[in-house]
Amino acid sequence: MELLKTLCQVQAPSGNELPLKEFILNYVNERRSNWTCQPEIIHGEEFQDCLILKFGQPRTAVYAHMDSVGFTVRYENQLVPIGSPETRTGSLLVGQDQLGPIECGLVVDENNMIRYDFGRTIQRGTNLVFKCDFKENEEYVQSCYLDNRLGVYNCLKLAESLENGVLVFSCWEEHGGGSVPYLVKFLYEKFNIRQSLISDITWVTDGVHPGKGVVISLRDKNIPRKSFVDKIISIADRSGVDYQLEVEGSGSSDGREIQVSPYPVDWCFIGAPEENVHSPREKVHKKDIAAMIALYGELLKEL
Amino acid sequence: MELLKTLCQVQAPSGNELPLKEFILNYVNERRSNWTCQPEIIHGEEFQDCLILKFGQPRTAVYAHMDSVGFTVRYENQLVPIGSPETRTGSLLVGQDQLGPIECGLVVDENNMIRYDFGRTIQRGTNLVFKCDFKENEEYVQSCYLDNRLGVYNCLKLAESLENGVLVFSCWEEHGGGSVPYLVKFLYEKFNIRQSLISDITWVTDGVHPGKGVVISLRDKNIPRKSFVDKIISIADRSGVDYQLEVEGSGSSDGREIQVSPYPVDWCFIGAPEENVHSPREKVHKKDIAAMIALYGELLKEL
Amino acid sequence: MELLKTLCQVQAPSGNELPLKEFILNYVNERRSNWTCQPEIIHGEEFQDCLILKFGQPRTAVYAHMDSVGFTVRYENQLVPIGSPETRTGSLLVGQDQLGPIECGLVVDENNMIRYDFGRTIQRGTNLVFKCDFKENEEYVQSCYLDNRLGVYNCLKLAESLENGVLVFSCWEEHGGGSVPYLVKFLYEKFNIRQSLISDITWVTDGVHPGKGVVISLRDKNIPRKSFVDKIISIADRSGVDYQLEVEGSGSSDGREIQVSPYPVDWCFIGAPEENVHSPREKVHKKDIAAMIALYGELLKEL
Repeated sequence: MELLKTLCQVQAPSGNELPLKEFILNYVNERRSNWTCQPEIIHGEEFQDCLILKFGQPRTAVYAHMDSVGFTVRYENQLVPIGSPETRTGSLLVGQDQLGPIECGLVVDENNMIRYDFGRTIQRGTNLVFKCDFKENEEYVQSCYLDNRLGVYNCLKLAESLENGVLVFSCWEEHGGGSVPYLVKFLYEKFNIRQSLISDITWVTDGVHPGKGVVISLRDKNIPRKSFVDKIISIADRSGVDYQLEVEGSGSSDGREIQVSPYPVDWCFIGAPEENVHSPREKVHKKDIAAMIALYGELLKEL
Repeated sequence: MELLKTLCQVQAPSGNELPLKEFILNYVNERRSNWTCQPEIIHGEEFQDCLILKFGQPRTAVYAHMDSVGFTVRYENQLVPIGSPETRTGSLLVGQDQLGPIECGLVVDENNMIRYDFGRTIQRGTNLVFKCDFKENEEYVQSCYLDNRLGVYNCLKLAESLENGVLVFSCWEEHGGGSVPYLVKFLYEKFNIRQSLISDITWVTDGVHPGKGVVISLRDKNIPRKSFVDKIISIADRSGVDYQLEVEGSGSSDGREIQVSPYPVDWCFIGAPEENVHSPREKVHKKDIAAMIALYGELLKEL
Repeated sequence: MELLKTLCQVQAPSGNELPLKEFILNYVNERRSNWTCQPEIIHGEEFQDCLILKFGQPRTAVYAHMDSVGFTVRYENQLVPIGSPETRTGSLLVGQDQLGPIECGLVVDENNMIRYDFGRTIQRGTNLVFKCDFKENEEYVQSCYLDNRLGVYNCLKLAESLENGVLVFSCWEEHGGGSVPYLVKFLYEKFNIRQSLISDITWVTDGVHPGKGVVISLRDKNIPRKSFVDKIISIADRSGVDYQLEVEGSGSSDGREIQVSPYPVDWCFIGAPEENVHSPREKVHKKDIAAMIALYGELLKEL
């Protein structure tokens, strides 16, 4: 869990994913000599701050978004949300501007405006994220940004034994998207990738429970193609991995951008469920993490 | 009207259009020997569940979406809408899960939650649609899913004598789209198609009346290019076909996806108006259906 | 300011940008012999009503939308908004239908419906825009449609001495977009353009003040890539031009469409701030216009 803990501490809200990209790139270069297969590492200005690892002859891409929710400093102590973070007075925020490192408190004032409480003015446009307080016991991990550092972690675990497949680290997912369209285009045109899995974190609800297995989402705000989801369920059934089926009317993911892209690419959201969504206290059951990694391993072989 | 009645009975909510695609494909293969020209039939995994019929040297594409609104079974008898169906207690829904065929009632409970009423639990993720009760008299047809089985019907009637043009059967229109972007791309890159007509059903309003002719929509939530719409109106004027002009601030169609696609393709929505939108009792005047078919015939010749 | 005044008087709401395109094209052909470099003039049916001026070896594109907000005539004296115009009883609207020129009053009735007050029925689908009442003193210009005729004006001033860069005149920005996706595609595929600036008008707020310089927007509803915006700020710092940094949670521009396009193109919104947004009385400080033109000149050299 040391890797996950480190991932959760990297500050990378939507629009500033570069620090996480660089962390992943370093990690890959340090570890890949131990992996079963050597990936092609694809990145650079044509991919903005995204990163792609291509293994063997891929048929399926796994998307994990690197960005997190957070806040942008506006004027007069005001904060503007990045994505939809929980806004609770007392949460600790961290960041950095030209005057130095920042650790400050979040305040929701009487007019429901979000503000920071700090001893000096913070420069306009500075990004702030939740301070990481990583906790772990036998059953659970708890931290800010398990969404989606767990999705990234899943990919890095998959990488150790992956033979054929593409791992994609994307940007801006929490705030309207913008990188998945060109990633889909590249993977379709270059490698004819028509299958994709969304390695991301979903919600504990009245039908999805912690510790009961990885979640295969049949739909959220978007509806994937039924024949593709049915194929995944039949592989999951054969695999023996614990899984749960989700049906929601709201919520979205990198899958939305694949769905509406000008490429005929199927997608399905598969990930562990969490409590305290988009808060500093996101909490996931360890069994569900293990099930997530196990199911992805099967799917990348069978799909 | 037997063809229309059969079309209305096929269960194909957004995300599961395959049954309607297969019906159309069978119909085309049975009937096309009687048609004036033989189309190229284009489909397969690169088009997901969509279907394209290409006649001659096309300049214009006609889009008819195959999918309908409906419901997805969630947990504890709950239903999640697909698109925006009417939700009225007592409506009959049909579907199928692994335990067998389903016919159940829709219930809106005291908390405005939508539920089903059935003798057993229905499997999570099962799709349900309105039960078809097709009615017809001298003036009107009434059924669920005239939107958009009438748009599909219009295409199949056009096909009988079409010489140059593309008929496109699309997916997901009722629920956020997702197939039109790659269909536009294919048709633009392959056949240089820059003109498109949306064969779909609109609303009876204070300015659009049943029996007064097919509707040419000047705008809905989206605004097509004025010069293209003006060209269509001038052809309609010369044709002698009864038509009405619509101006709305809301509502959308496959035209929206053409508008925002990365291809410079014009579009215009043209279709019969209906009452009781997205209910089991959609109702359209037969004169407007005849005018729709007649105007499309003219437009595909003249545009 | 004569050019700006003339630009403000051209009627070109979203979907009917053709009159403004033709005005710009004529202006360019009349004036370009005095320019430092001769641009390639790119337009035609493959660009719908858009216009592109390509100078030298471009690295950066400047987008200025030609369209304005306005109204479409519906039924029974009703008006449907194009974009989000101010709706205040008494505003004067102008347009033209087949019966002749129109000048009428806007009325917001007791049910908050928007209507026109005119001596005859106006044809369904007719576009109406605010009547231009252009005012100017030593400090300010005031008119309808400074958003975005000032953005267009900025481009035409830039053109006089531009050596390398692309000036893009786009459509539909005020009403959901639709031209930027194919413009981005063309510029990326043809000239490998990966940097873009949005030449548009923003708002005076509690953090952005008239007369204090051109605005560089760090974010609005969308969040551009931080490394690109940081590069722009460092050029602005070196330039000595007065500028202000904006941080907003709402508002959007052509930048949104670049962000979500399937091309890895960076963007940043840079423009003068105005008061009385989307009204007949949009008001901009002349110092901010001068700073806008100066900063764009520097950026097109340095980026």
